[in-house]
Amino acid sequence: MSSELAVVLVSTRNPLNIGAAARAVANFGFRDLRLVDPYDVAFREAVSAVGGAHILQSARVFETVAEAVSDCTLVLGTTAGQHRVPQQTVDRLEAGMAVARGYRGRVAILFGSEKFGLSNEDMSFCHGLLRIHTAPETPSMNLGQAVAVCLYELVRAREQGCGDVVDAAPQLGSQSKVTGSDAEQLTRMLLDVLEESGYTNRITATSTEQKIRRWVRRLRIGPRDAPLLLGILRQILWKFRTPGGKGWG
Amino acid sequence: MSSELAVVLVSTRNPLNIGAAARAVANFGFRDLRLVDPYDVAFREAVSAVGGAHILQSARVFETVAEAVSDCTLVLGTTAGQHRVPQQTVDRLEAGMAVARGYRGRVAILFGSEKFGLSNEDMSFCHGLLRIHTAPETPSMNLGQAVAVCLYELVRAREQGCGDVVDAAPQLGSQSKVTGSDAEQLTRMLLDVLEESGYTNRITATSTEQKIRRWVRRLRIGPRDAPLLLGILRQILWKFRTPGGKGWG
Repeated sequence: MSSELAVVLVSTRNPLNIGAAARAVANFGFRDLRLVDPYDVAFREAVSAVGGAHILQSARVFETVAEAVSDCTLVLGTTAGQHRVPQQTVDRLEAGMAVARGYRGRVAILFGSEKFGLSNEDMSFCHGLLRIHTAPETPSMNLGQAVAVCLYELVRAREQGCGDVVDAAPQLGSQSKVTGSDAEQLTRMLLDVLEESGYTNRITATSTEQKIRRWVRRLRIGPRDAPLLLGILRQILWKFRTPGGKGWG
Repeated sequence: MSSELAVVLVSTRNPLNIGAAARAVANFGFRDLRLVDPYDVAFREAVSAVGGAHILQSARVFETVAEAVSDCTLVLGTTAGQHRVPQQTVDRLEAGMAVARGYRGRVAILFGSEKFGLSNEDMSFCHGLLRIHTAPETPSMNLGQAVAVCLYELVRAREQGCGDVVDAAPQLGSQSKVTGSDAEQLTRMLLDVLEESGYTNRITATSTEQKIRRWVRRLRIGPRDAPLLLGILRQILWKFRTPGGKGWG
């Protein structure tokens, strides 16, 4: 895993925090920083990126979370886990990072905005959610500090020869290995199917979309399952859109 | 230990970093922030202390490291450990914090200035030095992030029931339990003795002072040993200053 980790900052407002994140990325030996819809486009000038300026310069900007994680097969979201109870379990950082460490494939870790954290929509792209164990009175960490702590935990045991509890969150380890873009294509197509089938009520469309997105990521869809599923969904859509059509066969 | 931990920031320049440190102190359930000679006296206004404002308000300011750690019996310094090779061993954060966690008594963790870190003088007050394991190309962390990572490591296993390798740095665990002020009084008096005895060369006085300070802290001086030693040193000094004097008895 290690060098294949992407740190994804979603809707970050303060360039100083982007700089601090870049520095932490460099400090812990990573390279790949991605920004989704940053508030201030002048972030590359952030003075807080001492030692991480090269990370900041090569950081890629995406318009959506879907695009940012499109090449990642394990997506982990971070949350203070106090304000909302999403329909996803929240693991402690230690357990989640043990899984990420043992994972073969590209991993993304998502960090939400300073004020609101990750939205339910953002979280629906995640295979798992992580929280740093903080004091109940002051649970919410500074963004740059949270990034540093997460990356520290990820590399903590490296070169120490410590045994890690890789089974701590087996539900994550045995997840789907389908890429983010395949998973999203499946989600989109399934949503089309649901909408065109009349399943999706216009009023509840947004929450349904999130539910479906989470569900697709919870399923154990392998890379070879994806084309098959897509073919089936495509066929269903064709059937919907071609009244009287008889399908391919 | 836990609530008896003091985070000591030495010669910090940027109030934002003091605020970030205060926030980390609050996030991980601690209370005691101490500042030695901060560059900007307006640090209490630091906006980066979201959730840690109460820590910042109650932070105490000291003129010297000696005063800041006077009530602490275990003093740990932090260093990127790249630029200088102090005459003290540098442990990995994991090992040092395992000792601090199991320690009974007041612990201080020292963080140096953004630009220079802890000076050799500052380090001479420490019983042990710690480094966060970072990438060799970018070893130096942002101050607020370093504080967060250190405190995270300290409370990491808490409420998890993890076994910890308390013996990882036994040389620290079996250290002197003499308070910082007793140790410093011993150091001062010993230095007076050395100077008045002609041992200390004026030219090398500073390096001698640091050597002696480190040495006193490396010794296993217990609380009941301190008065005895002080008495002996006082007696020697009296002898030096009273030509022809015969001492007490």
